[in-house]
Amino acid sequence: MPGNPVLDAIRHRRSIRKFTDQDVSRREVKAVLEAGRWAPSGLNNQPWRFLVIRRGDPRQAAVAGLTKYGHVVERAATLICVFLDKDAVYSPMKDHQSAGAVIQNMLLAAHSLDLGAVWLGEIVNRGDEVVRALDLPDTLELQAVIALGRPDQKGSSKRKELGDLMLEDF
Amino acid sequence: MPGNPVLDAIRHRRSIRKFTDQDVSRREVKAVLEAGRWAPSGLNNQPWRFLVIRRGDPRQAAVAGLTKYGHVVERAATLICVFLDKDAVYSPMKDHQSAGAVIQNMLLAAHSLDLGAVWLGEIVNRGDEVVRALDLPDTLELQAVIALGRPDQKGSSKRKELGDLMLEDF
Repeated sequence: MPGNPVLDAIRHRRSIRKFTDQDVSRREVKAVLEAGRWAPSGLNNQPWRFLVIRRGDPRQAAVAGLTKYGHVVERAATLICVFLDKDAVYSPMKDHQSAGAVIQNMLLAAHSLDLGAVWLGEIVNRGDEVVRALDLPDTLELQAVIALGRPDQKGSSKRKELGDLMLEDF
Repeated sequence: MPGNPVLDAIRHRRSIRKFTDQDVSRREVKAVLEAGRWAPSGLNNQPWRFLVIRRGDPRQAAVAGLTKYGHVVERAATLICVFLDKDAVYSPMKDHQSAGAVIQNMLLAAHSLDLGAVWLGEIVNRGDEVVRALDLPDTLELQAVIALGRPDQKGSSKRKELGDLMLEDF
């Protein structure tokens, strides 16, 4: 399927953990958020909530202090914190899946805009502390923090062969 | 961001539950599976496993009998069953999120190929029965079934306004 830009984006997107000092515009951040908004969810319950932290906001350092990837958080132009609203969820597994769809939409959107992004999941181990540090209600469950900026690396990654993922030939 | 095909695909993809009688080629199914394969996962553990059921396979009716959306399953040209390998998982939340990223990649890929697809989640309520009906090992946890075919409807869906999802202005 040569020349299919959606398949190309899915194939070539990489986690980007090094960013230049350049900013990301509000318009670009909004495009990334919009991509998240259009993810599917079970019963279309859309339980996700977003918080944006721009460079210069003191909360950036607070978040950085709660993950071993603080150096990535500190260098990002923008953080998008993704939460689930516990009052809006209906099935833990399905709501977490839909959060994954949101995050993947955002990563693909960032890639399509020539931005770099990385899905920070380790910080979720201290999700409750993040919620408190951001002075948010405890009805929110942290799903991930997406660090966003202008890429200062190419990124690389590997995957298992498709045959290793198939339960039988097709 | 006019003319960005990735953002357009994310924005315009819809659940398609009605399919024509036309088949989906093996090449197209493979492109959808490849898109799933390139999803991100925590620690790059890639815990997902796939099973493809093509039209004419008696297992299609077996799966149809385990969901109230059996009419969608029966009319699909192809089913992609997505599982997690319990032996490969490391965090239920993060593994379910990555399954969501896989599924979203597959839905976007199908859309980009002018195929129709729907994420069937209700069937997960009987996931153990699906695993047994397909004669698969009980180390697999059903995540979703994607019904795939040539679209015979346009599909429609709505989302909350972005402002309703933001925890504060940005």
